[in-house]
Amino acid sequence: MNDLILTTFDWVPDGPRGHVRDLRLRWALEEAGLPYRVASTPFGDRSPQHLAHQPFGQVPWLTDGDLTVFESGAVLLHLGERSDRLLPTAAADRVEARSWLFAALNSVEAASLPWSILVFSGEDHDSAAWAAMDGFLAARLDHLEPVLAGREWLAGSFSVADIAMADVLRLVHRFDRLAAHPACRAYVERATARPAFVKALADQMAHFAAAD
Amino acid sequence: MNDLILTTFDWVPDGPRGHVRDLRLRWALEEAGLPYRVASTPFGDRSPQHLAHQPFGQVPWLTDGDLTVFESGAVLLHLGERSDRLLPTAAADRVEARSWLFAALNSVEAASLPWSILVFSGEDHDSAAWAAMDGFLAARLDHLEPVLAGREWLAGSFSVADIAMADVLRLVHRFDRLAAHPACRAYVERATARPAFVKALADQMAHFAAAD
Repeated sequence: MNDLILTTFDWVPDGPRGHVRDLRLRWALEEAGLPYRVASTPFGDRSPQHLAHQPFGQVPWLTDGDLTVFESGAVLLHLGERSDRLLPTAAADRVEARSWLFAALNSVEAASLPWSILVFSGEDHDSAAWAAMDGFLAARLDHLEPVLAGREWLAGSFSVADIAMADVLRLVHRFDRLAAHPACRAYVERATARPAFVKALADQMAHFAAAD
Repeated sequence: MNDLILTTFDWVPDGPRGHVRDLRLRWALEEAGLPYRVASTPFGDRSPQHLAHQPFGQVPWLTDGDLTVFESGAVLLHLGERSDRLLPTAAADRVEARSWLFAALNSVEAASLPWSILVFSGEDHDSAAWAAMDGFLAARLDHLEPVLAGREWLAGSFSVADIAMADVLRLVHRFDRLAAHPACRAYVERATARPAFVKALADQMAHFAAAD
């Protein structure tokens, strides 16, 4: 088996700690029990070498032998194909898990990310733009709520789709935006109680704290 | 080979015509030369049966024999695995194409979608929220520009990553937001000149026009 290397920033400010997307990869790697090591790239200098691995100057990326994979979704899919603890093996369940992986990112995070940017920027919540972005998020949560009220995990058993979805919802929950969506809230709490998540979060916090 | 059925709305208003996401699937199917047929679901009634296929009440979804796939990204990946005209076969190129597919959706569309919602809503462009969303998009385009200046397609040969990325950028270009990004603009023009795109777009327009 190839050596798996997860690359993240050497340091980030306090605000994003606990939410840098290397968390999704750490969580998946811990769930699967795959051995890996963590490498750092400078937060303060997005070098040409960084951009060669991650064209948007972000993190994380994964190296797997000769392969380099960027975008947390693509890495989750890649790891999912290495462990049946991360993706179901039955064809219909696997297709459903892949659909939900994209849904977590392209339907739910597509709404939660702009919302969170406005929250972090302290944007005036009386503006029409805020109302449009908050309404976009609300529509997604309203559709997700009955789904999560009826199942423990998105696609049969726990999968990379749950890692992506729970991490997306976790940021929304941090700002108490799941108050009217109890099934979404319970899902986040269920997912983040898993030992692999707890270890991944502690490891990310320790990684950045070590550089302070 | 199973019968492929693409489901989209029976009708949509003029505004989104030409940009409904079934276009991405039609484009991929035409590129691959895979036989398919198109089915409709009511725009005016998001029934429980619709939600069973697409939990957010959106379109499209694909049925492939007993399998049902939702989220345009998941369907592109599914179709990519059925045709080497849509995904490279060499391992490193395939991983790169999959990374770029996620990047098109979760890095670029994540920024262009909120921006386009504010454009469509006629939001006041003097607000701090508008500036934040426009800046988010600008940052993504600024990183993409040098990439597209140096290559014809994102991952070696034309792939589903290009279908997703070109369709995302096409909406941005429609509102003249690529004026300062000539390589992005040239890429959209190159992609949308492909006969498969031209047919897909004409077919979508004809599908909705038939219901007027």
